[in-house]
Amino acid sequence: MAEDLFDDIEPIDGGVTAPKGFRATGVSCGLKEGGYKDLGLIWSEVPCDVVGAYTGNKVKAAPVRLSMSRMTNKISAVIVNSGNANCVTGKQGEADALRMTELTETHLELDEGAALVASTGVIGEPLPMDRVEYGIEKIARLIKNENSIQNFTNAIMTTDTRPKNFGCEMKIGDTPVKIGISCKGSGMIKPDLHMFHATMLVFITTDIVMNKELMHTALKEAIEYSFNRISVDNDTSTNDTVLLMANGLAENTQIDAENDEYKIFLKALTELCISAAKAIVKDGEGANKIVKIDIRHALTMTDAKKIARAVADSYLVKTAVFGNSPNWGRVIAAIGYSDAKFDLDRIVFSINGLPILEKGEQNRANISKANGEMIQNEITFTIDLGLGYKEYYLWTCDLSYDYVKINAHYIS
Amino acid sequence: MAEDLFDDIEPIDGGVTAPKGFRATGVSCGLKEGGYKDLGLIWSEVPCDVVGAYTGNKVKAAPVRLSMSRMTNKISAVIVNSGNANCVTGKQGEADALRMTELTETHLELDEGAALVASTGVIGEPLPMDRVEYGIEKIARLIKNENSIQNFTNAIMTTDTRPKNFGCEMKIGDTPVKIGISCKGSGMIKPDLHMFHATMLVFITTDIVMNKELMHTALKEAIEYSFNRISVDNDTSTNDTVLLMANGLAENTQIDAENDEYKIFLKALTELCISAAKAIVKDGEGANKIVKIDIRHALTMTDAKKIARAVADSYLVKTAVFGNSPNWGRVIAAIGYSDAKFDLDRIVFSINGLPILEKGEQNRANISKANGEMIQNEITFTIDLGLGYKEYYLWTCDLSYDYVKINAHYIS
Repeated sequence: MAEDLFDDIEPIDGGVTAPKGFRATGVSCGLKEGGYKDLGLIWSEVPCDVVGAYTGNKVKAAPVRLSMSRMTNKISAVIVNSGNANCVTGKQGEADALRMTELTETHLELDEGAALVASTGVIGEPLPMDRVEYGIEKIARLIKNENSIQNFTNAIMTTDTRPKNFGCEMKIGDTPVKIGISCKGSGMIKPDLHMFHATMLVFITTDIVMNKELMHTALKEAIEYSFNRISVDNDTSTNDTVLLMANGLAENTQIDAENDEYKIFLKALTELCISAAKAIVKDGEGANKIVKIDIRHALTMTDAKKIARAVADSYLVKTAVFGNSPNWGRVIAAIGYSDAKFDLDRIVFSINGLPILEKGEQNRANISKANGEMIQNEITFTIDLGLGYKEYYLWTCDLSYDYVKINAHYIS
Repeated sequence: MAEDLFDDIEPIDGGVTAPKGFRATGVSCGLKEGGYKDLGLIWSEVPCDVVGAYTGNKVKAAPVRLSMSRMTNKISAVIVNSGNANCVTGKQGEADALRMTELTETHLELDEGAALVASTGVIGEPLPMDRVEYGIEKIARLIKNENSIQNFTNAIMTTDTRPKNFGCEMKIGDTPVKIGISCKGSGMIKPDLHMFHATMLVFITTDIVMNKELMHTALKEAIEYSFNRISVDNDTSTNDTVLLMANGLAENTQIDAENDEYKIFLKALTELCISAAKAIVKDGEGANKIVKIDIRHALTMTDAKKIARAVADSYLVKTAVFGNSPNWGRVIAAIGYSDAKFDLDRIVFSINGLPILEKGEQNRANISKANGEMIQNEITFTIDLGLGYKEYYLWTCDLSYDYVKINAHYIS
């Protein structure tokens, strides 16, 4: 039975350090002001298969380009810095990204090409490599004695207000297998990952034994239902990276086909990615609320996506959500300019299940009740188009004073 | 000589009341709280040819649909209300819009179908027709004795902070001819008028004698260089209307071809529309600054438009402008996700003529100077792509705390 299949997936702590053989920690090397941690390292006892998804922005930072070129390598470590994106930094930036991986490989005694690099922070500033070099030496020494998910997540945060770690354990056959995610991201988030978009760094580790092509299929599918469905603002970053690393230490029978075991892994991975994606929206710059824009009965998937995106990205809808206002007029206006097929006389717009507008008529009693719903931290806007059978959803957040405050004064 | 042609175009006061035979005024009828003026009327002594451009939003308010259907009529009056958009108001809304024109026609003793109607304000609320009927009777009586551009512009404003009136006089042959514009609009502005978009009501009057088809051509061209090139937020309204009315009272020799006289009129109309469009951006909700996004040397016009739109609409660029930050990284990131063709190594990005980023290298001395430029009220961001010969520009504004404040609490 399909439901029973997933009964044994259980949440666990530890983020990327949860699966067997993975360690992580973080240090300060002076990239952020004030002595905050700004350099993180993930290290696997044994080399991993890795698959990744990267920003769709045509301006790709040097570390993104370098890591992309290593997806066929066996990988043992990922070095991550915050405070500087190493983007639009020319040939020096390329040399610096390469140097970061070389130093990591040297100090951890890895094969050439066995380290990846990710960066987040200001665009256009050269990395202060003396500090970075000192930091890598320090962290490579430290990680042998210290395994701290807290230090790692602190090191990768920028405008994030809280660490984001998720994990689960499942049974593949009789063998326990684990997945862990640690991620950062809060502003400049509008993923469109085909492989990808957003100042979002997502590291996923697992100890599963699995065919690499299937890992890629699973990651793509999980992203489609998670990181591809969030919107904080309309901007898409130059540095986004999602990595899935598998070191095989769980020693399960290798998954080689899209069988029940694959489905369990896919389900677990997708649920974790959804939790991580929602956490990123909730931690959107200045955000107080998460709103699911739920499109039902669209004629085509393209229509469903266009409407979801128009509503989720509308400044006016997002400020109304901030103001606790069940402002269906702005939702309808956004549907109107979405360029999708709809018939106003068939639309039912509901807030947390309360129909607000039905077939062109507003429901005043429900609007009064919806005032109470709008103060919740999680809200669902359902837009039932009454035309076809396609469904789609996106998560968005409110647009607050703090978004403006953070971005007027943060240099990125 | 082409330049001499335009030497005699002179600015004049009075907005829509400037051309011969046009009157306007405004009254309060209780649509806005607090007794503010909320009903405006434009009246021409003699019937006018009229051409218009309307919102591209598929959800069109009842007054928009009614006025669109009358573009072949001779028009003598336009009745305008603020405080209620009469949009998503069903069959009652259609009847109410029609009733507004009927009452205007009756009280001004006009032919059936000789009045147009425009509305702006809250979506989804039925018009309180008893108040509107009382107001139309009052204003139709008043306009015979009172000609007040100030009362008219006050009556059509919503979140606007100032009236927007422009006008000019030119010579057609030896005959003086006038054009006047009065408009409102500040939020929900992202025109894309092919004919059109934005809670923007633009009324243009002229006493010229001109072939109606040429009026249409001229309006389309003027809009392309003005209202089509502004962005306050990403939202597009259900009620936008641009009307050009010509009553022929200047008694110039009729313009029947795209000759020098036509070119003078087109130039004058375009300049006025540009002034009005810039005034709308400057009065953008919460806006403090206007930024021209000036694209040079793009390979194709599509590329130039995509880049201008991506940069002009970027929340992060707009908040950086609010924070007086010459943040070229965010501009480059927006170019990167614009889906346009570019080569980072050829881009020169300048702020008010100071090159900030040239061929992948930032100019630190100019960035320091640009800090001083960013505090200006009018700023130009020039993005020279160094690839081809296409040029395009857009005007945008900053995104401030006040934008959030206004829209979190204003119901539209």
